[in-house]
Amino acid sequence: MRNFADALVRKIAALDNPTVMGLDPKLEYIPQFLIDEAVNEYPDDAAKATAHAIWLFNKALIDAVYDIIPAIKPQLAYYELYGIEALKVLNKTIQYAQNKGMLVIADCKRNDIGATSNAYAEGILGSTEIIDGTKVSMMNADCATVNGYLGIDGIKPFLDVCGRDGKGIFILVRTSNPSAGDLQDLELGDGRKVYEAMASLVNTWGEDLIGEEGFSSVGAVVGATWPEQAVEARKLMPHNLILVPGYGAQGAGPDAAVASFTADGKGSIVNASRSLMCAWKKREDLDPSDFAKATRDEAIDMRTKLNNALKDRKYV
Amino acid sequence: MRNFADALVRKIAALDNPTVMGLDPKLEYIPQFLIDEAVNEYPDDAAKATAHAIWLFNKALIDAVYDIIPAIKPQLAYYELYGIEALKVLNKTIQYAQNKGMLVIADCKRNDIGATSNAYAEGILGSTEIIDGTKVSMMNADCATVNGYLGIDGIKPFLDVCGRDGKGIFILVRTSNPSAGDLQDLELGDGRKVYEAMASLVNTWGEDLIGEEGFSSVGAVVGATWPEQAVEARKLMPHNLILVPGYGAQGAGPDAAVASFTADGKGSIVNASRSLMCAWKKREDLDPSDFAKATRDEAIDMRTKLNNALKDRKYV
Repeated sequence: MRNFADALVRKIAALDNPTVMGLDPKLEYIPQFLIDEAVNEYPDDAAKATAHAIWLFNKALIDAVYDIIPAIKPQLAYYELYGIEALKVLNKTIQYAQNKGMLVIADCKRNDIGATSNAYAEGILGSTEIIDGTKVSMMNADCATVNGYLGIDGIKPFLDVCGRDGKGIFILVRTSNPSAGDLQDLELGDGRKVYEAMASLVNTWGEDLIGEEGFSSVGAVVGATWPEQAVEARKLMPHNLILVPGYGAQGAGPDAAVASFTADGKGSIVNASRSLMCAWKKREDLDPSDFAKATRDEAIDMRTKLNNALKDRKYV
Repeated sequence: MRNFADALVRKIAALDNPTVMGLDPKLEYIPQFLIDEAVNEYPDDAAKATAHAIWLFNKALIDAVYDIIPAIKPQLAYYELYGIEALKVLNKTIQYAQNKGMLVIADCKRNDIGATSNAYAEGILGSTEIIDGTKVSMMNADCATVNGYLGIDGIKPFLDVCGRDGKGIFILVRTSNPSAGDLQDLELGDGRKVYEAMASLVNTWGEDLIGEEGFSSVGAVVGATWPEQAVEARKLMPHNLILVPGYGAQGAGPDAAVASFTADGKGSIVNASRSLMCAWKKREDLDPSDFAKATRDEAIDMRTKLNNALKDRKYV
């Protein structure tokens, strides 16, 4: 891949769907028959059985949507929660999705400085030289989420890996949670808010990684739950990709979710995690063994709603 | 453990040493004879040999200082950099240090919201229910570093685990890097800077976790490279533990490193990573097989310097 932003924008256009599927697996999201299958496979190793259940779940969801959704966004917290075996499944999931043609955004919100930030960037997006001198891609995600609180020292190592390997990052600007404003809405002496200052930094940091489609591989996270702020954020970041969490289970609808798209309806991608992963729980008409069909139906519905919202914008 | 802050403050007092040893292993920090030993152990598996070299290095350093240094701070980026086998070594290192009586601060700067923040907190500090209904501690660190950009929604799940299991967190307030001020020094409308607003939030968030020694298990990260800001930060956080990076290889000396200690010389702990791990590289008088002795000598020297600086404070 030469430029992550080009790859994502083109994939969204090809599928006519600005959706990314969050893969944040918790055991309670997984249908019982898959749990049983995993326990049968590893009857004497609960850690491996747990991870295998997550793998079976992820694989089925990817199989169900890879031809209609451009990207997945595994949330690393849940793989760390279930330990080493689940981290192996994370790597397997990333590779599987990529082999199906999907882009992979590792939602990890990593942040540090200098050599340590470089270690995160190489571990998640790039490659590592190990003891025999070979270079190994440990996770090989296409993109990572990053927290910019530490300034350019924390971002530069990611920019270097993105430029070298054609990868991308999304930097937290305005998050989707109720208390996002605790820090992000504090008003600065010059009248801007903290998140607006962060947006301007992201705009500057991304200048050298703008692709042929006109967007930078250095993007921003701007929650769907704050559509007015999303409109402002887009003005400050006209050329940056925007990752939009908060749709569905977190409460935002399609009109709010498309607030950060450019005037011609591009440049942003809307995440849905629980509403896609757990769609089967709302479908009494389906046998649980058809759980992945519920996710596909929900994905098609979401695609329609987002495209309709883009035709008749409520927030501009 | 009932309260992390009590445990840390008492351990520092018992050893008369406010030092934490960073364990940020890179292959080039490890003496060749340990590399050779690891390759001999796993001649056909470079990933396992790499991780084993890190384990041999970590173990020797812990053995060399556990009776004089109260805590270690493994930096998760480096274990992620070397992949799954290195993450197993991270868990083994944590357990080994705890068995030697040391406290373990996982330097991971994690951040997210709600259920996802809970997943990080349970994975790193708490416990996870797996497929057979048993509860497993995945990493079982005593404390984690956390980024507070997302506000209380991201912090609350950590507070809950800390209160329940006697664990702690250090929230980034003023980091040690040159560009820390890109965001952290922006001036707010009320005259404060962003890092001061974060310090006040940390002070509030930590109120319910103050232990018998008078310090909260909700601490702050304040870099040694900014002693004037450290003095201001301590005023805003009189009851919070402070973790001080930036000593040694990053350029700060002992006077600056103790700027955030309370008037009676308590409540902060100074990190050194490379200056301790790589001490052997500066010692031509020592055989490389005695590399851990160089770390111990350096640790004793650092302890003396910090305690002298505490007797004659330059920044108050």
